[in-house]
Amino acid sequence: MKILVQKFGGTSVASLERIERCAKRVIDALKKGYKPVVVSSAMAGETDSLIELAKRVTGRPPEREMDMLLATGEQKAIALFAMTLNKLGYPAVSLCGWQVPIITDDVHTKARIRKVGTGKLLSLIEEGYIPVVAGFQGVTEGGEITTLGRGGSDTTAVALAAALGADCEINTDVPGVFTADPRVVPSARKISRISYEEMLELASLGAKVMQIRSVEFAAKFGVRIHVRSTFSEDEGTWIVPEEEVMEKVVVRGITMDTNETRFTIVRVPDKPGIAAEIFKALGDAHIVVDMIVQNVSHDGFTDMSFTVNKSEADKAHEIVAKIAKKVGAKEVVRDDRVAKISIVGIGMRSAYGVAGRMFEILAKNGINIKAISTSEIKISCLIDEKYAELAVRALHEEFIEEMEEFETINGNG
Amino acid sequence: MKILVQKFGGTSVASLERIERCAKRVIDALKKGYKPVVVSSAMAGETDSLIELAKRVTGRPPEREMDMLLATGEQKAIALFAMTLNKLGYPAVSLCGWQVPIITDDVHTKARIRKVGTGKLLSLIEEGYIPVVAGFQGVTEGGEITTLGRGGSDTTAVALAAALGADCEINTDVPGVFTADPRVVPSARKISRISYEEMLELASLGAKVMQIRSVEFAAKFGVRIHVRSTFSEDEGTWIVPEEEVMEKVVVRGITMDTNETRFTIVRVPDKPGIAAEIFKALGDAHIVVDMIVQNVSHDGFTDMSFTVNKSEADKAHEIVAKIAKKVGAKEVVRDDRVAKISIVGIGMRSAYGVAGRMFEILAKNGINIKAISTSEIKISCLIDEKYAELAVRALHEEFIEEMEEFETINGNG
Repeated sequence: MKILVQKFGGTSVASLERIERCAKRVIDALKKGYKPVVVSSAMAGETDSLIELAKRVTGRPPEREMDMLLATGEQKAIALFAMTLNKLGYPAVSLCGWQVPIITDDVHTKARIRKVGTGKLLSLIEEGYIPVVAGFQGVTEGGEITTLGRGGSDTTAVALAAALGADCEINTDVPGVFTADPRVVPSARKISRISYEEMLELASLGAKVMQIRSVEFAAKFGVRIHVRSTFSEDEGTWIVPEEEVMEKVVVRGITMDTNETRFTIVRVPDKPGIAAEIFKALGDAHIVVDMIVQNVSHDGFTDMSFTVNKSEADKAHEIVAKIAKKVGAKEVVRDDRVAKISIVGIGMRSAYGVAGRMFEILAKNGINIKAISTSEIKISCLIDEKYAELAVRALHEEFIEEMEEFETINGNG
Repeated sequence: MKILVQKFGGTSVASLERIERCAKRVIDALKKGYKPVVVSSAMAGETDSLIELAKRVTGRPPEREMDMLLATGEQKAIALFAMTLNKLGYPAVSLCGWQVPIITDDVHTKARIRKVGTGKLLSLIEEGYIPVVAGFQGVTEGGEITTLGRGGSDTTAVALAAALGADCEINTDVPGVFTADPRVVPSARKISRISYEEMLELASLGAKVMQIRSVEFAAKFGVRIHVRSTFSEDEGTWIVPEEEVMEKVVVRGITMDTNETRFTIVRVPDKPGIAAEIFKALGDAHIVVDMIVQNVSHDGFTDMSFTVNKSEADKAHEIVAKIAKKVGAKEVVRDDRVAKISIVGIGMRSAYGVAGRMFEILAKNGINIKAISTSEIKISCLIDEKYAELAVRALHEEFIEEMEEFETINGNG
């Protein structure tokens, strides 16, 4: 039994007409011999309008109740999706997260999947039904509805694929993963195969195609993901284990993220435990800290910088201001107008001088670097927001387009 | 611990502002020493717009999926209700039907409650939370979401009150139960106490204040119900055991129901088993048959008439036409323009000549009676729809207003 998990995003199911189009893709898979399991997001706009409604009640709605509210979005979509499949002559049954069940921890609005039950899904499939599962939601062991955070439907799809030993098709509103954002770099090209590691770096850096946690999940369980457009028959991008990626280029893609805020705590007494205190407090508040830079200390004082997602900047600011005061730092400086530019590629592991070339290109374009962070397969530079697009175009030209010419000559393009 | 179940209907929670008003009524009960348990319907219009959406997908959506879809309406309302209570400083937790759990049979869109779990509710109350329960929905033993049919939120409220040994407050958009529809009879007055039996007859005959099943439930378990307006502080109508009703009048109320269709199967061969076959087929299709009249047979043939709710008339017509053909009846005549006028009162049990007086009043007004049915405490006449309001006014004057004068003289008015 060849199961295929097919996930449809919010824009793909934005109207009844679109749901019917998605249903036809499911029927196509069935005709090709697959046993499809559908995962659907809420109809586009639905989640936002529910959030809007909650905010009209109170500035800070309890997160447990937020999950109760938001979970209705996907439930509505899957009922309509199942009705559509039934109308087209294909028996289908919709399932909420708690009915599968998709068991999560109890961190409301950002829950993590712990366990996926497959018994109900498998018996529905055996009885000839197409299961249509609500993305984005789960249930705690204690029977509380949880949601997985923005983009959580991808995680649902990958988790189901992992549990069922299936491939995972992500049907979305873009044709695949690109070497850079095509709106910024018109010559950006679609990547046909990419490794989990590269995709992880691209996702976390703002490629926005897939939620980072879903790619981690896929990597952990070896789920092969096919990201493609709902509105086209073309192949998209396969996200696969490294050994399945044929062409090992140095730089796979270039990303730009203008969604971060940088904080600098000025003149922090350089004593053990202070960094721990700051980042533990942020962690306790479930704030993800990205780049952390600490400069060399002078006269027993040091400056400490870090970035967080803009949406959490106010919350982070509050926490950091309190600690800064407590430990006797001079001040907290906040900068919302920064951009993080990154180059990503598994080939970097064995290539020399990539960082140097990157800094050189930025310098040549008069762009000052405010912070640097690197991983084995990625180099990120924080720069002034206004140079972001310029930087991406210049790096794309240097690292991707030149290489592409080379590949074309060698017949791999 | 004095628990009070407070139910709010769709118009009561039609907007965030109205939900806040309802929340304040809950807080008032709390301040009076009650432990409130809230039951909420979906926001007015929500259920209709979901049904509309489903109908745009397909003329006959699967009922299981219909329940999945409709259940989102109450879930949304309870999350917003709980958020509102939390905002006002009163910790509240919303619960879907499956979380309580409210266990039902598996007749989708018309399920019946089999069992109500109280453990979770009681421990929430003990921890100081106000539980906010979704009306109208339940769950089967197998974990499928069900709904209880139109007005099912009343049943939810009464079932919870029965399970918790509590009184039940029905907050709605009318001030209580009236002796007749005030739009038809301007002199109609609010009834302060009414017995379950009387209310059952009034509800089933179109008084529209409460769902009939919820009153049956209340009668079975002795739940005292207070029907009142959400938008006023006035006392409404108490629906209570017969022994608690002080004034035992002959006629408690007069109702009119123009929501029925009459079918007559003409020249049915008068053989055993034919009536059974017809009404078994209607029962299997979950169609409720109201008045049944069979005339004396002539030459081995008889005419058989019955009424069903207009919403089920097409379905019933189909079934009856098939059987009529099969058994060799002459034809099926359908009449959509009928009204059922009824007088209801526990005092009828011991009063003489009430039916005679009713027929006399109708005759005096030139109204022809098409069918009659009676119970211990009710007499119903089917008449031409165009005389419906005239009939109600005439009967109200005779049976209620005269009596009211008498009561006033005796100091009970």
